[in-house]
Amino acid sequence: MKVGIINVTGYAGAELARILSQHSEVEVSCVTGRSAAGQKLGEVFPHLSSLDLTIAPELDGSLDLVFSALPHKASAEAVIPALERGLKVVDISADFRLKRAAEYEEWYGVQHQHPAYLEEAVYGLTELHRAEVQAARLVANPGCFPTSAILALAPVVQHGIIEPDIVIDSKSGVSGAGRGLSLSTHFSEVNENVMAYSVDGHRHLPEITQELAALTQERLSVTFLTHLIPMTRGILSSCYARLRSGGDWDGPQGVGRIRELYQAYYAGHPFVKIAPKPPQTKETLGNNMCLLYPTVDLRTGRLIVISCLDNLVKGAAGQAVQNMNLMCGFPETAALEALAVYP
Amino acid sequence: MKVGIINVTGYAGAELARILSQHSEVEVSCVTGRSAAGQKLGEVFPHLSSLDLTIAPELDGSLDLVFSALPHKASAEAVIPALERGLKVVDISADFRLKRAAEYEEWYGVQHQHPAYLEEAVYGLTELHRAEVQAARLVANPGCFPTSAILALAPVVQHGIIEPDIVIDSKSGVSGAGRGLSLSTHFSEVNENVMAYSVDGHRHLPEITQELAALTQERLSVTFLTHLIPMTRGILSSCYARLRSGGDWDGPQGVGRIRELYQAYYAGHPFVKIAPKPPQTKETLGNNMCLLYPTVDLRTGRLIVISCLDNLVKGAAGQAVQNMNLMCGFPETAALEALAVYP
Amino acid sequence: MKVGIINVTGYAGAELARILSQHSEVEVSCVTGRSAAGQKLGEVFPHLSSLDLTIAPELDGSLDLVFSALPHKASAEAVIPALERGLKVVDISADFRLKRAAEYEEWYGVQHQHPAYLEEAVYGLTELHRAEVQAARLVANPGCFPTSAILALAPVVQHGIIEPDIVIDSKSGVSGAGRGLSLSTHFSEVNENVMAYSVDGHRHLPEITQELAALTQERLSVTFLTHLIPMTRGILSSCYARLRSGGDWDGPQGVGRIRELYQAYYAGHPFVKIAPKPPQTKETLGNNMCLLYPTVDLRTGRLIVISCLDNLVKGAAGQAVQNMNLMCGFPETAALEALAVYP
Amino acid sequence: MKVGIINVTGYAGAELARILSQHSEVEVSCVTGRSAAGQKLGEVFPHLSSLDLTIAPELDGSLDLVFSALPHKASAEAVIPALERGLKVVDISADFRLKRAAEYEEWYGVQHQHPAYLEEAVYGLTELHRAEVQAARLVANPGCFPTSAILALAPVVQHGIIEPDIVIDSKSGVSGAGRGLSLSTHFSEVNENVMAYSVDGHRHLPEITQELAALTQERLSVTFLTHLIPMTRGILSSCYARLRSGGDWDGPQGVGRIRELYQAYYAGHPFVKIAPKPPQTKETLGNNMCLLYPTVDLRTGRLIVISCLDNLVKGAAGQAVQNMNLMCGFPETAALEALAVYP
Repeated sequence: MKVGIINVTGYAGAELARILSQHSEVEVSCVTGRSAAGQKLGEVFPHLSSLDLTIAPELDGSLDLVFSALPHKASAEAVIPALERGLKVVDISADFRLKRAAEYEEWYGVQHQHPAYLEEAVYGLTELHRAEVQAARLVANPGCFPTSAILALAPVVQHGIIEPDIVIDSKSGVSGAGRGLSLSTHFSEVNENVMAYSVDGHRHLPEITQELAALTQERLSVTFLTHLIPMTRGILSSCYARLRSGGDWDGPQGVGRIRELYQAYYAGHPFVKIAPKPPQTKETLGNNMCLLYPTVDLRTGRLIVISCLDNLVKGAAGQAVQNMNLMCGFPETAALEALAVYP
Repeated sequence: MKVGIINVTGYAGAELARILSQHSEVEVSCVTGRSAAGQKLGEVFPHLSSLDLTIAPELDGSLDLVFSALPHKASAEAVIPALERGLKVVDISADFRLKRAAEYEEWYGVQHQHPAYLEEAVYGLTELHRAEVQAARLVANPGCFPTSAILALAPVVQHGIIEPDIVIDSKSGVSGAGRGLSLSTHFSEVNENVMAYSVDGHRHLPEITQELAALTQERLSVTFLTHLIPMTRGILSSCYARLRSGGDWDGPQGVGRIRELYQAYYAGHPFVKIAPKPPQTKETLGNNMCLLYPTVDLRTGRLIVISCLDNLVKGAAGQAVQNMNLMCGFPETAALEALAVYP
Repeated sequence: MKVGIINVTGYAGAELARILSQHSEVEVSCVTGRSAAGQKLGEVFPHLSSLDLTIAPELDGSLDLVFSALPHKASAEAVIPALERGLKVVDISADFRLKRAAEYEEWYGVQHQHPAYLEEAVYGLTELHRAEVQAARLVANPGCFPTSAILALAPVVQHGIIEPDIVIDSKSGVSGAGRGLSLSTHFSEVNENVMAYSVDGHRHLPEITQELAALTQERLSVTFLTHLIPMTRGILSSCYARLRSGGDWDGPQGVGRIRELYQAYYAGHPFVKIAPKPPQTKETLGNNMCLLYPTVDLRTGRLIVISCLDNLVKGAAGQAVQNMNLMCGFPETAALEALAVYP
Repeated sequence: MKVGIINVTGYAGAELARILSQHSEVEVSCVTGRSAAGQKLGEVFPHLSSLDLTIAPELDGSLDLVFSALPHKASAEAVIPALERGLKVVDISADFRLKRAAEYEEWYGVQHQHPAYLEEAVYGLTELHRAEVQAARLVANPGCFPTSAILALAPVVQHGIIEPDIVIDSKSGVSGAGRGLSLSTHFSEVNENVMAYSVDGHRHLPEITQELAALTQERLSVTFLTHLIPMTRGILSSCYARLRSGGDWDGPQGVGRIRELYQAYYAGHPFVKIAPKPPQTKETLGNNMCLLYPTVDLRTGRLIVISCLDNLVKGAAGQAVQNMNLMCGFPETAALEALAVYP
């Protein structure tokens, strides 16, 4: 099968090329990137030089599926024509994640040019929407933070175990901010430092609330705060919510029951694992796994769920390939078998 | 004035020596350290070689005040004899922080050998107990996390503005774990990694609840989770609690009123600053400042307070010197004027 | 084919398990580790939990080949009995790298217990000894620094292009020091720091001189200095030597000729690449490539060769698998196809 | 005394402000910065907010001395008018470091606009030119690499102990590249990475050769290669040169004699220290010291000198203040007494 990668020159695009190089059924036959058009891919990314691809200004050739790693707005403009030509599309941008165009416009500050596709687009958090992904033409690949947070909270929101009042405190490596330059990703500013950012509201919040709200009748109140820490890859989200009283979740045995609930919820999903001890982001570096650790603060009856993943893999390119695998009938784990690189 | 440092060979002890070297009224005339006794201080810590001190096995000479940077239990054993000989004491260990011996024994797993001094000891969070510190013989210097969390929350707990249900999510550099070796502080394990630790309960929790509970009649429910991030110095604590409804704190103007409350609460305190934008730990590196940033998640009515400090300075040795200054009638800022080293 | 890994609990052992998990012809059927015997491999290394192996105290079962990741001395003791039972052996320790037992004893401070095997053992720098490796029973896998330095210098030493007076300045990540604890690998000591170490002579020097000396009649004078830098994986060696005067290597065209010489020298070797611009260690993270960049300081007529690799892959476990592939008739690149993880 | 800082908004400028805040004889009464003019200094650099300065577009007020932290070319344009108005000047840029305008033009690619001042300007490597600095109106503050390399090599070049064939291999933190954005200082590119850069010739080379050449009659051949490592502050230079044969420098006693020579050479200089063991950059963080460790590779008779400093302090702002102290008759160490921040 032939696929293209639009905007290969960012980190998500390059990661797609890296992962797809291990896919026995897929040939990356076209990669695009505006500023670097005409260059060999290996000139921009030496670690990809063995792929022997030249960066094109536009998609060309006969393709079956296209990944877009463009920023929002530009991505919709690029993928809808491809979709209308009959290609399948996995869009890594935010353009088709939110179901309501008004919400998109509120958070992204631009009018949506293709709202007609919002309903058709499948939110590609694979574990929650596997069947829809299998049937999809257009998959909106989730954001990195939402992937970590929704997977952490879906079981307890759906089962009504927690009060609908949630705090998500996320810590992210810097690659999530992309390859574009800014003072806040300048080495001397980030190194030996930690900061909260987007304190007034991070664009990934509406994805989180949209997807969790779909699992419950209750009105959810979600506070989501992101922090930048001095590492390249990885997200760890610590999620907090009170257990509903009167449930069967109190005490040490309650923790065991909650763990069983998570085990059951993600049974059959190869890329979510309930960790036996608190996980570390390093256990996922370069790998498509999301590690979850649900536990209870017995002093307060509060559920804590810790979630770890590699923001460029399960949080972006890896999940995009996982979705492609389902859309195209390949084994879900194809090209995603490599273990994490540790230490 | 002559002071001694017991156990200078850890990070807090070395930091005391560094800071005190700038104090015009104080001479460090004795430093101890068991394993390194007989060595020059500069052999263990080259950056301190200009101090020209030899590490002694025991305190000696005529001293006015002693700092202990020993671990808990050993510290009480070392400082009580000194106290009883008439020296003033600033104890950086946990031995005299908790007022109830039973709580100490529950969290530290050893019986307290000197419970009679628990009442006299002053919890040296300077901003909350300045007058008592000025009069104290024995100051229990707070833990690094409690310093960041209590300063962040004291104003709103005392004024009854929040519901008594608090989440504190702290991120710490590795030096807080000390100079002792462990796999969890081994470079290759910590670098490019983030993990939660002490998930079942961190020893600094009872300090936090003790001090916050003293400010309110309500019963507090506090969840406190610590994370290790790949940097050496710094703690950032993100604190979450619902604003009590019906108050005057809603909307953008509410944020302004809360900021004014913090400004007023810490007026006249040179080492707490209400930051105009979200602070970063790097802004405090090597410096005794605690930066606070209170704000409100307007979507949920939740208060967020972000707190930054250098765990070895305001979280340990700097605050110890600040306390010494008050105990001995020096200006509170003596030896603590140096600005943060940035970047 | 069934293989065993002796001492899987260090970084090189764990990396062997990671890489071999991708090998379609090899089953890791036994892993040993003294302190962790009885534990599941995934308890010690969560990233390896999918391998579902239990750590044994000793090799058992029917094996075809064994890797040893033990420290020197212990390694020889473990592998010789296995060799004598008919297994092939790839020894990652230093025990069989040096041809002269006296030199081993000088540098390692212990008497060699199996000097009779020193002649038979093949120094497994694959690119220099491919044919011997193919025929070997016992391969001594090279040290990480020697791999980077010898590959950088072999072409010019063998062709007599440089004066026999060489400086090798190497910079290494911390994982090269292993998983054992020491103050010099303690995070707070290494982070935001660089230091030279083993200044009086590093144990990898005799390997370098042994292998380079075998390529020339001249007596070589080699200075080799190692530096520890704050990263986990990677070695960059900068090698300096004067070009012999009167040669054809002067001027910009000389640089081109030297590059051609390197290209020719390593033609047909899949894991050495002559980089078109100065390489970075990050381009090799998790990957078995050694990147070489030969150039000339035109102001002084000095050759500079920069060499990059991942110390745990081409510098240890990856090269060990490469050697196993040759010893067993598999494609040289089997299980080593994954691209570097970047950024 | 009133001083101004031109271009306070870079790292060197901010570091000047930080250091001068501790100077009892100096008031920083004007700071300039084009893009940030009108902002409070604390808005750009929160760690400097206590200084309560507003960034001006141009120097104003009555000043005695001005520091320029502008880039080359712009710096000369700014400081010469100030000098001609009677101010003393310490120029941190490269504009007055090289004595020959032609060499400046070759390396910096612009014509020198004020060559008439090149002779008068004193190269402010304080330890080599103290008397001239004391009498100077215009001091050209050295580059960070030259400071580390020249201090390391001056004693042996001047005494003719080494052959005039030198390799300098320098490792630098990223702050040396300044606060301007570039892909090579983007966190995700630099972290967990090491690279050589300016392989075809670094602009600091001509300073090194100019200053070393002035100490000897011999023609020197110097290769200088710089490396970027993942830390913010610090330079470690490893310098290599053959000891001249027939000297008295062979063997272990020779090392002692060389150390004595260094001790004598830098006697009376408070900011150069001959370290008793190999130094680490961390021992100088935030501090004005240059640590030197001369030793001999006894196997080859090669001198190795390791040199450590903080590139923003002794390599820039600290040395500038040291020079100001001498120019103005203050104690050489004024405002520079703070010990390094370690760990």
